[in-house]
Amino acid sequence: MQFGKQEERRRRKVREAMENGYHEIPENANEHCPGPQAESAGKSDDCQGCPNQEACATAPKGPDPDLIAIAERMANVKHKILVLSGKGGVGKSTFSAQLSFALAGMEHQVGLLDIDICGPSIPKMLGLEGQDIHQSNLGWSPVYVESNLGVMSIGFMLPHPDEAVIWRGPRKNGIIKQFLKDVYWGELDFLVVDAPPGTSDEHISIVQYLQATGIDGAIIVTTPQQVSLIDVRKEVSFCKKVGIKVLGVVENMSGLQQPLTDFRFKKVTETGEERDVTDWAVEYMRANAPEMLKLVAYSEVFDSSAGGAAKMCLEMGVPFLGKVPMDPHLCKAAEEGRSCFVDQKCGASAPALKRIIELLVENQVVSGISIDDSA
Amino acid sequence: MQFGKQEERRRRKVREAMENGYHEIPENANEHCPGPQAESAGKSDDCQGCPNQEACATAPKGPDPDLIAIAERMANVKHKILVLSGKGGVGKSTFSAQLSFALAGMEHQVGLLDIDICGPSIPKMLGLEGQDIHQSNLGWSPVYVESNLGVMSIGFMLPHPDEAVIWRGPRKNGIIKQFLKDVYWGELDFLVVDAPPGTSDEHISIVQYLQATGIDGAIIVTTPQQVSLIDVRKEVSFCKKVGIKVLGVVENMSGLQQPLTDFRFKKVTETGEERDVTDWAVEYMRANAPEMLKLVAYSEVFDSSAGGAAKMCLEMGVPFLGKVPMDPHLCKAAEEGRSCFVDQKCGASAPALKRIIELLVENQVVSGISIDDSA
Repeated sequence: MQFGKQEERRRRKVREAMENGYHEIPENANEHCPGPQAESAGKSDDCQGCPNQEACATAPKGPDPDLIAIAERMANVKHKILVLSGKGGVGKSTFSAQLSFALAGMEHQVGLLDIDICGPSIPKMLGLEGQDIHQSNLGWSPVYVESNLGVMSIGFMLPHPDEAVIWRGPRKNGIIKQFLKDVYWGELDFLVVDAPPGTSDEHISIVQYLQATGIDGAIIVTTPQQVSLIDVRKEVSFCKKVGIKVLGVVENMSGLQQPLTDFRFKKVTETGEERDVTDWAVEYMRANAPEMLKLVAYSEVFDSSAGGAAKMCLEMGVPFLGKVPMDPHLCKAAEEGRSCFVDQKCGASAPALKRIIELLVENQVVSGISIDDSA
Repeated sequence: MQFGKQEERRRRKVREAMENGYHEIPENANEHCPGPQAESAGKSDDCQGCPNQEACATAPKGPDPDLIAIAERMANVKHKILVLSGKGGVGKSTFSAQLSFALAGMEHQVGLLDIDICGPSIPKMLGLEGQDIHQSNLGWSPVYVESNLGVMSIGFMLPHPDEAVIWRGPRKNGIIKQFLKDVYWGELDFLVVDAPPGTSDEHISIVQYLQATGIDGAIIVTTPQQVSLIDVRKEVSFCKKVGIKVLGVVENMSGLQQPLTDFRFKKVTETGEERDVTDWAVEYMRANAPEMLKLVAYSEVFDSSAGGAAKMCLEMGVPFLGKVPMDPHLCKAAEEGRSCFVDQKCGASAPALKRIIELLVENQVVSGISIDDSA
């Protein structure tokens, strides 16, 4: 630490004031609280009897100096995109990873920031497990997949991958702030921020820290299930409340689709016992019903009879970006930290993902992207 | 509020002290911090120069009075089981819901508490959407599915289901404490607690609030994917750190398995166009390869070549409870808030779930369950 105790204390107080909530008003404040950042904080008539009166009266006023440091870093970043989901496990990190691969493949300079502090999956999904971050006089260096794709995640900072990060909100907010303030990304065309599910500390903080620097908007990832869509509605309402544009909603895991020959076949006896008969079944079809071997089989998996994400988007007035089917090859690419665009394996999912990303970039859904920008 | 400003202030201070972190030691504390609850807090030589010195010296000492109120409520609860997952979307809430249905079906008195504050799915999964909770002089009344299955969730308290709960940690902790302190469950055989993914505020708080009252242990739900297993290892490490017994790990979504006749079939042309040929394909098989119609088709979906949850359990020394295949009928039951055990629809998943729950109950994996207990 290069600054003294007093400065450290001042910074801590400012941080605490920031962390009091999105509206920066303590929960137990009086009804007409002017906000702890107001000049009249703690001194107004409205503050009489408030438990925070003394703290507010003596707290430093004015903008958080860290926000200024963040703004300086972000001056070199053209576009900032948040990837959100209401519910976990909908493939948000897979989408963030593949979006970053795709943008980098289009020759953009891309940074991918993982703010899932307790469950960082980004290092694995970019094939960077076990890597360390380095510090230089310019700041923390991201870990690079390619020269134009840098990644930052708490996953790079854990002494042991199995170790739980048992952190409450303020500590999570602190590290997110450091990621924004201290990481030396250099010039970026895109900063993709992968958030954990929900609408709590990480989400409030990233918006609070980045808002003044301009956020292009948020992509929300969901599955067609009702339980997932309920949470997406909450995520859309979060974006509206905090003033973040919803760039669009991606429906992921829209049914399982793969060639019939990729399945295994089982015979289930009346007593519930299972016997694998795949080899026999393939031979049997080849001999008697060879046309079957050319077909693709599709299962909806998640019930989407209520209309799925497309209908929800219509109701909530946000763009629907498209569907990506559940594809075991995409799952495998994610597990192995590979781009799904470099070979033909992810035939069921990669074209769908590509269409969505092209829609984002070409149709300028991301504000202000122009040919000049991406040149 | 029935208590005065001063008492409110005192309670707030105690709450804040509790919320300083699992070890109750502020992050910026001196190295040999005695802890803010210690008698010597703020007065010890080790406290010199610590930014928390004054706060610690004046904070009230002794146990949190709320913990006493929680202990009183929990005196009527025989078994407390946490359902955890490292990653979201692995079917944790579906498992919690079906576990509760199953235990209630065995004539136990069951309470299901949803502590996922930002994304509550439990009301939907129990078929209780749109229900309200009521207050009586005994406390908040749970919402009942059956007379022996009561449910509590923040989902019952939201004025509008689309509304985001934009709450930072302390506020989430506050409502969890209220759920434990103020809900009138009556006599319970089982309290099942469904937690959000991760190892942060909700998890630290539930353990902190319940530990003194005795927690039987945690069931951890995962999928076979590596990215999910990485987070489960963190969850197991969390349980070990905070002293919670891992009752076992459930591998959910272990491949998609359903009768071949439940699939749709598509023909994909060379240009990538898809045509649904399901009716034709079924007729074609009936005429030429009728044995196919009796088979079950299985796809792994998530790559489990690394050994899945069973191998991880072996490595980490925790019990493996079993696999539950991905079953569209189970997804549908969850969406519709139904038990999967009452009819024969969930043929692929219900028997697997039943075996796991019987294992938990009959083998006394849940400590101290005996015939007397369940009588």
